[in-house]
Amino acid sequence: MERTLIKDLVEHIGKEVLISGWVDVARNQGKMAFFDFRDRSGKAQGVVFGKPEVLEVAKTLRPEFVVSVIGKVNERPEKMVKEGIQNGNIELEITNIEILAEAEALPFDLDTDLNLDTLLDNRPLTLRRERERAIFKVQATIVDAYRTFLNGEDFIEFQSPALVGGDAEGGAGVFSLDYFYDKKAYLATSPQFYKQILTGVYERVFTIARVFRAEKHNTTRHLNEYISIDAEMGFIKDHTDVMAVETELLRAICTRLTETSPEEFRILGAEIPTIPDEIPRLKLREAQEIIFKETGTDKRAEPDLEPEDERWLCEWSKQEYDSDFIFITHYPVGKRPFYTYEDENDPGYTKSFDLLFRGVEITTGGQRRNDYQSLRNGAKEKGLDPDAFAFYMQTFKYGMPPHGGWGMGLERLTQKFLGLSNVKEATLFPRDMNRIDTLLSIETSSKD
Amino acid sequence: MERTLIKDLVEHIGKEVLISGWVDVARNQGKMAFFDFRDRSGKAQGVVFGKPEVLEVAKTLRPEFVVSVIGKVNERPEKMVKEGIQNGNIELEITNIEILAEAEALPFDLDTDLNLDTLLDNRPLTLRRERERAIFKVQATIVDAYRTFLNGEDFIEFQSPALVGGDAEGGAGVFSLDYFYDKKAYLATSPQFYKQILTGVYERVFTIARVFRAEKHNTTRHLNEYISIDAEMGFIKDHTDVMAVETELLRAICTRLTETSPEEFRILGAEIPTIPDEIPRLKLREAQEIIFKETGTDKRAEPDLEPEDERWLCEWSKQEYDSDFIFITHYPVGKRPFYTYEDENDPGYTKSFDLLFRGVEITTGGQRRNDYQSLRNGAKEKGLDPDAFAFYMQTFKYGMPPHGGWGMGLERLTQKFLGLSNVKEATLFPRDMNRIDTLLSIETSSKD
Repeated sequence: MERTLIKDLVEHIGKEVLISGWVDVARNQGKMAFFDFRDRSGKAQGVVFGKPEVLEVAKTLRPEFVVSVIGKVNERPEKMVKEGIQNGNIELEITNIEILAEAEALPFDLDTDLNLDTLLDNRPLTLRRERERAIFKVQATIVDAYRTFLNGEDFIEFQSPALVGGDAEGGAGVFSLDYFYDKKAYLATSPQFYKQILTGVYERVFTIARVFRAEKHNTTRHLNEYISIDAEMGFIKDHTDVMAVETELLRAICTRLTETSPEEFRILGAEIPTIPDEIPRLKLREAQEIIFKETGTDKRAEPDLEPEDERWLCEWSKQEYDSDFIFITHYPVGKRPFYTYEDENDPGYTKSFDLLFRGVEITTGGQRRNDYQSLRNGAKEKGLDPDAFAFYMQTFKYGMPPHGGWGMGLERLTQKFLGLSNVKEATLFPRDMNRIDTLLSIETSSKD
Repeated sequence: MERTLIKDLVEHIGKEVLISGWVDVARNQGKMAFFDFRDRSGKAQGVVFGKPEVLEVAKTLRPEFVVSVIGKVNERPEKMVKEGIQNGNIELEITNIEILAEAEALPFDLDTDLNLDTLLDNRPLTLRRERERAIFKVQATIVDAYRTFLNGEDFIEFQSPALVGGDAEGGAGVFSLDYFYDKKAYLATSPQFYKQILTGVYERVFTIARVFRAEKHNTTRHLNEYISIDAEMGFIKDHTDVMAVETELLRAICTRLTETSPEEFRILGAEIPTIPDEIPRLKLREAQEIIFKETGTDKRAEPDLEPEDERWLCEWSKQEYDSDFIFITHYPVGKRPFYTYEDENDPGYTKSFDLLFRGVEITTGGQRRNDYQSLRNGAKEKGLDPDAFAFYMQTFKYGMPPHGGWGMGLERLTQKFLGLSNVKEATLFPRDMNRIDTLLSIETSSKD
């Protein structure tokens, strides 16, 4: 018999079907046994009664057993219908159970609140929870909506390498490794150079890149390996063109989530953000001025925002503009990478931006220097040797249009969309200073 | 004035437009200057005459200068129309040229055949060649078609980590690096474990993963970092279910390429493969028997195919079945990873397959052991300690359906689709034992 997906059971009322999936809940009541079954498409209830040989098998089932079940789809009597629940109007009258794989007794109740270490120590199991399945389904939807929007805007996707030959940008901690012939290689901290090179080829590009930071983070918003969803576009007027495309991108993601994922947001108790026609934008100095006026805290001499400022500005933006988002622009030249474009009308400040969302920075972006000599000078002003990244510099020898783009951490974006307290909850297999799948301190398989 | 994309010029005949892009060709003929301009959408010709101040600017232009050009779109007289060429029926009568960025004189003619080192040493420039732009546009199309097909089949995409905690599978050379607290981390050689874990969550998953091999390859088909496009599916009958889905996937990719990329295949002189209703399939032993009968070469005692066998079988498949593809199944247990399912009806041989295409293996796949104890035994038989990958083993403690999947190298697939002689030509920024962007032996920026 062909398998029927659980979501399609309602089309088979009165008929015999075969479903395959996991036992989600098993309740043995002596002469009867009740089950919730789960497959990729949803859940349904089943019951065994009056069939001793089936009941015998049924009684051995525990949660997470994998089974193929044959039964008849019965409509429930009207007063037994469970409103608002998938398949709440039907029940499978089970006539046969085949066990495809057994499962040990679960080490803890999957439905309770779990602390982060338990959640991560048991990831193969805890990812099966309704909550976790919802998180990573939303994440896949974000990625797909991101791609669909950018493809529609004539961007082309490329694959950015993870192994790089040098630590050109300096600054962030970089993992190094032994390559061949006593040479070192490094793990990329950003696809920046490659996306700029490709902008010289295709004008508009994006990548879903793996990036790495060798920093001893222990915060709720940092990871040592994460996904950077990066885009770059040529022939812009200035950074505001980039901000405009990013605004429409976020709108497209929110629209898609509204269409496809209301159930996942319900499960997580989260709200899909609203995006105003135009996201409010302030220069850093304007933002600091407002903070000073409204709170009395004087940050006006600071070259950057602190986490508390980001939180305050997001609340302010929500109150003043009903926007979960706010752009902060014009960070000082000293605080931005060497390739950032200095605003000719505001010397000392860059055509750069951060996008803040629900209390944290989720994007860094801006216009880039596209003139070869200006880029060389920018590097030298930061104490970097442009000949150390001559490969990248070639791009600018041979004609680069005005261009800019952004980078965005997928996990942090997912976290903030879903209101999760820690970015690791939005990461399938988070790598941090203490953990790669298992806690490093208790790992038995470390090799040298 | 708003920018007009070059592909849309024909809609503006008789009107004034502004285009932005690169100078592709510049021909200065004294009182006139002729140009080919290039933007992301295509190419068009332009001419300057009778405008001394414009001609003065025009004469300074070299290939790869970035310009914004204003001009009138003129229809060419009928006998001047260039048939079969984009915009062959129009010409831009240039009235203004703004230089957005200059370009140095090119170090070599972009249109000639370049040797591989020149091609790779100058990647930021050589990627702008028509040929290279076609290659990576096709690659992006393959990735998009891959995702679209699998999403349609209810697969969900996930992000597989590049940093892993151990070298569990053994065998392939693995890059290691210093992590925190004197612990080692490794670069993933495959997303295998993670896709199996996720099969226990979503039943059907795929990933576009970065994988790494620390092997001193120097062949036309190996890379030290590559993209593995992997999929895994649960509730299969056996490996033939996996082969059936992969066949339809390849058909979907070919159909998409036929629709979107005839021009790119024309540029590369390549042919989109045909896929028969069913791809021919042979057990390894059957294949060896045929090779023996047809060629007299006796490989019947070999546990695997050699490159020359793969080439021969592909030619045979093309002749006998008009198929560019052929599946070889039932590799011996000894030649396959520990998680491979042994065929109960053919002991000593596995429910595994390779897919050969135009002379090389492009996919390895099969059914996996889904029973916890069988998997432990499989590991032990290979001399591996299953406790060294206890994290992965958890998956099988808690109920795993019969499942299987495949892995496929994106660069090699692109190479064979396009008939490129070296896989590095199908890699934007290939990493090999001698090169990470620049040749390691001449790199000036290596740091310790």
